[in-house]
Amino acid sequence: MSSDDDIVLVISNAPDLLLAKRIAHVLVEDGLAACVNLGAPVLSIYRWEGEIEGADEIPICIKTTAGRQQAVVQALAKLHPYEVPEIIVVPVIGGSAPYLDWVRAQAGGAGS
Amino acid sequence: MSSDDDIVLVISNAPDLLLAKRIAHVLVEDGLAACVNLGAPVLSIYRWEGEIEGADEIPICIKTTAGRQQAVVQALAKLHPYEVPEIIVVPVIGGSAPYLDWVRAQAGGAGS
Amino acid sequence: MSSDDDIVLVISNAPDLLLAKRIAHVLVEDGLAACVNLGAPVLSIYRWEGEIEGADEIPICIKTTAGRQQAVVQALAKLHPYEVPEIIVVPVIGGSAPYLDWVRAQAGGAGS
Repeated sequence: MSSDDDIVLVISNAPDLLLAKRIAHVLVEDGLAACVNLGAPVLSIYRWEGEIEGADEIPICIKTTAGRQQAVVQALAKLHPYEVPEIIVVPVIGGSAPYLDWVRAQAGGAGS
Repeated sequence: MSSDDDIVLVISNAPDLLLAKRIAHVLVEDGLAACVNLGAPVLSIYRWEGEIEGADEIPICIKTTAGRQQAVVQALAKLHPYEVPEIIVVPVIGGSAPYLDWVRAQAGGAGS
Repeated sequence: MSSDDDIVLVISNAPDLLLAKRIAHVLVEDGLAACVNLGAPVLSIYRWEGEIEGADEIPICIKTTAGRQQAVVQALAKLHPYEVPEIIVVPVIGGSAPYLDWVRAQAGGAGS
């Protein structure tokens, strides 16, 4: 059903802007992602070991291909300090053809 | 095609941060969601009763399971002051396995 | 598989708030979108002509129907100053029925 050329959004959060920038640079420099957006801080509310907790985080939105998705998830898990960092993948079902082609050219490279 | 164990994003907006925090706490405390992100204010532009309107809103992004999706939509509609609040669901097609399992454990509980 | 009545998110970025507001007004006034959210500035990091670049951008999230998706993409490409603006489409698989119906009524009009 899905192809390595499909575009996906990989969504994560970093505990601070410095790490978020480092993640973005590594992913783009290594050709794992075409573009990374770092958003204004969000307040994350969740239960951890039974208690409701809140944390300020920098949202990270990564544009890449389905073929690179697994490598991006692995790179994020390695770069991220959390035990169980949020990393989810959302499908892209359309858009501007030149932009989608640009993402493929940047991130869908030689599979190296 | 879809399973109660699938992960979804439920996306909404609240008119202010106080209500957004209340919604987040209720959903996490009641085991309806694993994690809720409250973002920096957004400007929403829409037509209402024929006029173009703008409103500052707090974006809410809820991580839960497909099995909890309907209960989350109902809880949001009840907690929200708008006549027709924005509540949409976006699919999650992958991510970090430990994170997806954590969402299922938090939100996919006894179905109570 | 998909119907013109399906709801989609069209996601883009503008180089500044003024243009983002103009895009939002045009899309809502022309009945191409039901609602447009303009977010707090994001930092976009990408490679352009071999160099890693960063740019502050205003994220734009457009709620419309699959039937209007192509017209929205074309309008965005025309209004946007970038050579290859980011325009991607994410599926919506559920939500509050009154809200989804409202999006269809606003954006799924006469197909004009």
